[in-house]
Amino acid sequence: MENQIVSQRLSALRCAMKKNGIHYYMITSADCHGSEYVHEHFRTRAYFSGFTGSNGTLLVGEEDAALWTDGRYFLQAEEELAGTGIELMRMQEKGVPDPEEYLGDVLKAGDVLGFDGNCVSAKLGKKLDKVCRGKKARISYDKDLGDIAWEERPALPAEPVRELTEEYAGESVMDKLEEVRRVMEKEGADYLFLSSLDDIMWLFNLRGADVTCNPVALSYAVVRKKDCGLFLQKKAVSGTLLAGCDVEIREYGTLFDWLETEFPKEENRREEGDEEAADKKGGKTAVKILASGESLSYRLMRILSEKGELILGESPTELLKAIKNEVELSRSRETYLRDSAALCKFIYWLKQHVGKEEITEISAADKLAEFRRQIPGFLDLSFTTICGYGNNGAIVHYAADEKTNRRLEDKGMVLVDSGGQYMGGTTDVTRTIVLGEVTEEEKKIFSLVAAAMLRLSEAVFLEGATGRNLDILARQDLWRAHLDYKHGTGHGIGYMLNVHEGPQRISWQYRKEVKEYALRPGMLISDEPGMYFAGAFGVRTENILEVVKEEENEYGTFLGFRHLTFVPIDREALDKRFLNEEDVERINAYHKNVREKILPLLNKEEQDWLIEATEDL
Amino acid sequence: MENQIVSQRLSALRCAMKKNGIHYYMITSADCHGSEYVHEHFRTRAYFSGFTGSNGTLLVGEEDAALWTDGRYFLQAEEELAGTGIELMRMQEKGVPDPEEYLGDVLKAGDVLGFDGNCVSAKLGKKLDKVCRGKKARISYDKDLGDIAWEERPALPAEPVRELTEEYAGESVMDKLEEVRRVMEKEGADYLFLSSLDDIMWLFNLRGADVTCNPVALSYAVVRKKDCGLFLQKKAVSGTLLAGCDVEIREYGTLFDWLETEFPKEENRREEGDEEAADKKGGKTAVKILASGESLSYRLMRILSEKGELILGESPTELLKAIKNEVELSRSRETYLRDSAALCKFIYWLKQHVGKEEITEISAADKLAEFRRQIPGFLDLSFTTICGYGNNGAIVHYAADEKTNRRLEDKGMVLVDSGGQYMGGTTDVTRTIVLGEVTEEEKKIFSLVAAAMLRLSEAVFLEGATGRNLDILARQDLWRAHLDYKHGTGHGIGYMLNVHEGPQRISWQYRKEVKEYALRPGMLISDEPGMYFAGAFGVRTENILEVVKEEENEYGTFLGFRHLTFVPIDREALDKRFLNEEDVERINAYHKNVREKILPLLNKEEQDWLIEATEDL
Repeated sequence: MENQIVSQRLSALRCAMKKNGIHYYMITSADCHGSEYVHEHFRTRAYFSGFTGSNGTLLVGEEDAALWTDGRYFLQAEEELAGTGIELMRMQEKGVPDPEEYLGDVLKAGDVLGFDGNCVSAKLGKKLDKVCRGKKARISYDKDLGDIAWEERPALPAEPVRELTEEYAGESVMDKLEEVRRVMEKEGADYLFLSSLDDIMWLFNLRGADVTCNPVALSYAVVRKKDCGLFLQKKAVSGTLLAGCDVEIREYGTLFDWLETEFPKEENRREEGDEEAADKKGGKTAVKILASGESLSYRLMRILSEKGELILGESPTELLKAIKNEVELSRSRETYLRDSAALCKFIYWLKQHVGKEEITEISAADKLAEFRRQIPGFLDLSFTTICGYGNNGAIVHYAADEKTNRRLEDKGMVLVDSGGQYMGGTTDVTRTIVLGEVTEEEKKIFSLVAAAMLRLSEAVFLEGATGRNLDILARQDLWRAHLDYKHGTGHGIGYMLNVHEGPQRISWQYRKEVKEYALRPGMLISDEPGMYFAGAFGVRTENILEVVKEEENEYGTFLGFRHLTFVPIDREALDKRFLNEEDVERINAYHKNVREKILPLLNKEEQDWLIEATEDL
Repeated sequence: MENQIVSQRLSALRCAMKKNGIHYYMITSADCHGSEYVHEHFRTRAYFSGFTGSNGTLLVGEEDAALWTDGRYFLQAEEELAGTGIELMRMQEKGVPDPEEYLGDVLKAGDVLGFDGNCVSAKLGKKLDKVCRGKKARISYDKDLGDIAWEERPALPAEPVRELTEEYAGESVMDKLEEVRRVMEKEGADYLFLSSLDDIMWLFNLRGADVTCNPVALSYAVVRKKDCGLFLQKKAVSGTLLAGCDVEIREYGTLFDWLETEFPKEENRREEGDEEAADKKGGKTAVKILASGESLSYRLMRILSEKGELILGESPTELLKAIKNEVELSRSRETYLRDSAALCKFIYWLKQHVGKEEITEISAADKLAEFRRQIPGFLDLSFTTICGYGNNGAIVHYAADEKTNRRLEDKGMVLVDSGGQYMGGTTDVTRTIVLGEVTEEEKKIFSLVAAAMLRLSEAVFLEGATGRNLDILARQDLWRAHLDYKHGTGHGIGYMLNVHEGPQRISWQYRKEVKEYALRPGMLISDEPGMYFAGAFGVRTENILEVVKEEENEYGTFLGFRHLTFVPIDREALDKRFLNEEDVERINAYHKNVREKILPLLNKEEQDWLIEATEDL
C-alpha cells in the first residue's frame, strides 16, 4: 500500500530540487551542531522519509530514493518505509554500499549533489567532495530545501538558559577554561571553535532545554587565549549570565556575519621564534583554529579553513567532560539510587496491575515517567522511553505509536529502556520484566543476557584498556551459543547532559580510522547486552557503571567498575540451568546490594516485593 | 665492575665515528631485510653493547651511550649491560623517551647522526629524518661503521637454497604470483618490491638456511606485472631453480647497481585514461612501486622514492602467507603431533633423571633437541631453546650461557620454550615442568596461567574480531588478581618459516597507528600467557592454535580455535583450589585429547607416564 503522505512530501522536495538544479539531495539526521537528538525543526529526514529512528541518511534522486540506517533500526525502518518507495540500505551489511559509494555509482558528470551544509558534518562533506570531484559532479551546500518544501516547519526553539552553581557543576567555568587552554597551548591552537551543544554547556556550566530530553541550548563558542565568545539566543538568557567570566555573549543568529567580518579580529600571533608556524604562510603567521571533526558542519569547515589553519581534531572539552569530577560523581551516585527506586516502584506496580486493568506500552511508559517525576530535581526524561511488549521488544530502538501500541498481558516479557534528567545527573537503565508465563527459550536468553551484563561489570583491567578490550566479556557466552546482538555493548553518559556521550564506548568491531579511548576513573559507561528475535521477543539488561581505580602496583594501575544502577534482574526468568556457579554468585551479590541500597527508598508493600525479588537464586 | 670487552669495542666505534665526523651512531637489531632474527654478520648491536636480546637499539654518543629494549628483556639487559656504561632505556615505561625523543633532546645544530641505512627501516629512518631536520642536524646513512670497527666480523652466509615441491608448498609459484598481482592491480601498483626474506621464500616456494633457526636465504625480489626479478647469491642456488616460472635470477650483491642502472626498465605505463596517475608528474605517468613499510630499509626507500611513486604499505604476501592452505595445515597438524610427542618424551626423561644425574639448563635443552632430531624431516630448531630453571624462568627470553647455566634439581620448576623446523611445519611450545616440591604460590600461579591459556583457546568470535578483542580472555583472571605479564599473548607462526610471523597477533594494548588484522580461518597463532617473579620463578604455558570456522548463521560467521599442540600441562602444579569448575573441565578435556593423540607415538614407559599425566584432576 502506498504511503501517500511521504509520497507527497517527496514530490514537493523533488519539485524544489528541480527548481534549484539539484539532481540528488541528501538529508542527514543532524542539526547544525552534530547533535544525536535534534529539535523538531531539524527532523527534515524524518519528515521527508517517514523513518523516525535517530540515525538515518536519506538520499533523494529524480526518480529513486534510498535511506541508510544501522542495525538497531532495520526492523523499524522496514516498517516505516513500507509503501514510500524508499529503498532501505542496511549499513555495514555485506554488499551494501555506503552513501558515498552509492553516489560514486549513480552520479554523472555535470550532476549537482545538494545538501544543507549546516546539517552535514565536515567529515561527511569531505567525502562527498571527493566523490563529486571524481565524477565531475558539483556540490550545492548553501540551500536548505527543507525551508522550501517543508510546509509548517517548526521554528527554532529558544528555551530559557540556566547557569549551574558550583554545587552542581563541581568546577568553575574559569577552571574549566584553564584546562581547555592548557590543551590548546599544547596543540599550538590560537582558537578553539565549539559547535557541539553539550560541550558548550559543560564548559560554561549552562543548561538549556532546546532539545527534548537533552538539557542543552542552541549555541556556538569560540575560545581564545584570554577571552571567549559565546553565541546564544539572547531572548533565552538573562543579562547577568556568566558575569565576571570574560565571556562575551553574542546573538546566536549573528555567528556567520561575525565570522565573515570580525574573525579573526586580532592576529593572535604566537611568540617570536615559533618559526615552524611562521614558515607556513610565507612568513606571515596564520592563526590555528582547533575544531572537533565530529561536530563541525561542512559549511563552518569551509568558512574556518579560509580564516586560518583549521585543525579538525578532538575538542579538549570531550575528554574533560567525560571524566566526571567528584561533585558530579557523588551527585550521580545519589541520583541513580533514586532513579533505580522509581523503576523498582514501577516494576512492582506493573506486576501488581498487569492482566487486571488496561495497560498499554504507552500508558506503562507514562506511569514510569510519573514515578520519576516525583523525584526531587526531576527535569525531563533523558530519552523517549522504549517500552516494547513481546515481539515489540525485539525492535532495538522501538518507540510505540498509536499503530504499534500493544496491550500488556499477564504473560511473556516487556522490555523497558528509560532514563531521566535530574538536577544531579542523567540516568539510563533497561530491564526486561516478566509479566506472566515465559518459555524455556525466553528463560535461557534472559539468563545469558543477565550473566553477560554482570560479567562485564566485574571486569578488572589495566589503565590503557579501551572498550574494545572488554566487549567480549559480555559477548563471549552468546558467541559460544552462536548468537549476537547487533549493537555496541556500552556508551558513555553525560551529567545532566546527553544520554549518549563520548568519547569512550564498549564495542568489539574494529575500524582503523576510529580512535579508541582508554577508560579512565570517573568515566560513566553503560553495560547493555541484549538479544532480539524478530517477531518473537527481545531481552536487554542495562546498568550504568562508573570506572574506578582498584589498585596501583608494579604491574600498573588496575581499574574496575562500580554499579550506579540498582534494580533487580527479574528472578522469574533467571534459570540456574543456563548459568554457571560464578554467574549465580554474581547475581546474588548484586541483588544483595540492590536490597540494601533501595529498600529504604520504598514503601512497605514495595519493600516486601523487593525482598522477594532479591532473594538468592 | 667494568665490562672491559664492551668498553674496548665502544672505544673502537667512537674512534671510527670521529674519523667519519659522526657525533651519534645508531645501531638497530636489524639486518638488511628487517628480519627479527639475524645472522651473526648483522649482530652489530650485540657486538658493541654486549646485550644479546633479539630487540634493542643502541645509540652511541661521544661520551655516553644508551640502549632501548622492551619488557621481555629488562632483566636480561640489566645483567648484560652491567659495567658497560650503557644506560638501559626501558621502552614503554612511563617517562622513558624513545630514541627519537632522546635524540631530539641531545642533538645540536650541525651534529651528524650516523647509521647503516641498510639496517635501519624506512619507518625509523623517516622519524630520524624529522628529528634531525628539527634540530638542523645531518644524517649520514651510507657508512656501516661495523665494517670498520668490528674486528673479525663474520662473512655473509650463503647456504644452499632448496625449492619446495607442491606436495609441501600446497600451491604453485605461478598461482601465488597471480594472487599477488591481483592485489597489486587493486592497489594500482606497477611493481612490488620485496625485501623481507620469509615473504620471498613463501612466494617462490624456496627455503634456505642463512639465519640460524630461520629457513630463509638472503634475497630481494621485484614482482612486475608479467615477470619477476629475484636476487639470490648464485653460489647458493642450482641452475634449474624456478625453471619455467618467468623469474629472472640475479646476483644478490648486484641489486643496488641494477636499481641504479636498469630500474625501472620499461615505463610500465598504466592504461590510457588513468588520469589521476598521469596528473601526478606533470602529465608523465610515474611508476607506482609498492613495498612493505615494515621491512624496507631506509636506503632502499631513498633509492626507490627517486625511481617512482613509492607506496609504503603492506605487501600482499603478508596476509596470503599468514592464511595457510590445506596442505600447509594438514602437514602442520601432523608435524605438531610429532613435535608434541618429542616434548612428552623429554618431560618423561627429565622427570625420571632429575636429581639423579647432572642435568643443566643447557644439557636439558640439548637433550630436548636430540628428541626432536629423531623426528623424520627435522631441519633445525625454530629458535634457541629457552630453558630457565627456578629464578631463570622469570627471564622471559632467557638464553642460558656458561655464566648463568643452572643445575636442575629435584625441586621447583623449569620453564622450557622451544620449537623445531621440519619438512612440514614450524613448531613453538612452552611448558613449565615440575621437578619436585613446589610452593603454594607456584601452584596458584601455575593454575591461573594454565586456565588462562585454555580459556583463550576456547574462544568463539565473529569474523572481524582481532587479537585485541580476545586477549582479555587469557588475562582477565590474572588482572582480577592484580597481576600481569609484560608481553603479548599470541603471535602468528610460519610454515617451515619464521617462528614469529605477522600480521595477526593477540595483545591488548592500543596504538592507533598500528593496524589490527582480523583472525581468519587457516591462520596459526600462539596462546602463551605467563607470569614472572624476578629472582623467584616464572611460568608460561604455550600452545599453538589454528583458527577454524565454526558456524555461519544469520548473525555472521563464527570462528574458533583448534589446538595444534598436545602436551600435558603439569598436574603436579595444578591445584583445584585455584581453578573454577569450567577450568577443571577444560583441563580434563584437553588432557583426554593429549592422551588419545600422543599415546601411539610413545614407547611403553612413556605411555604409562602419559596416562598418569593426563588423568582427570
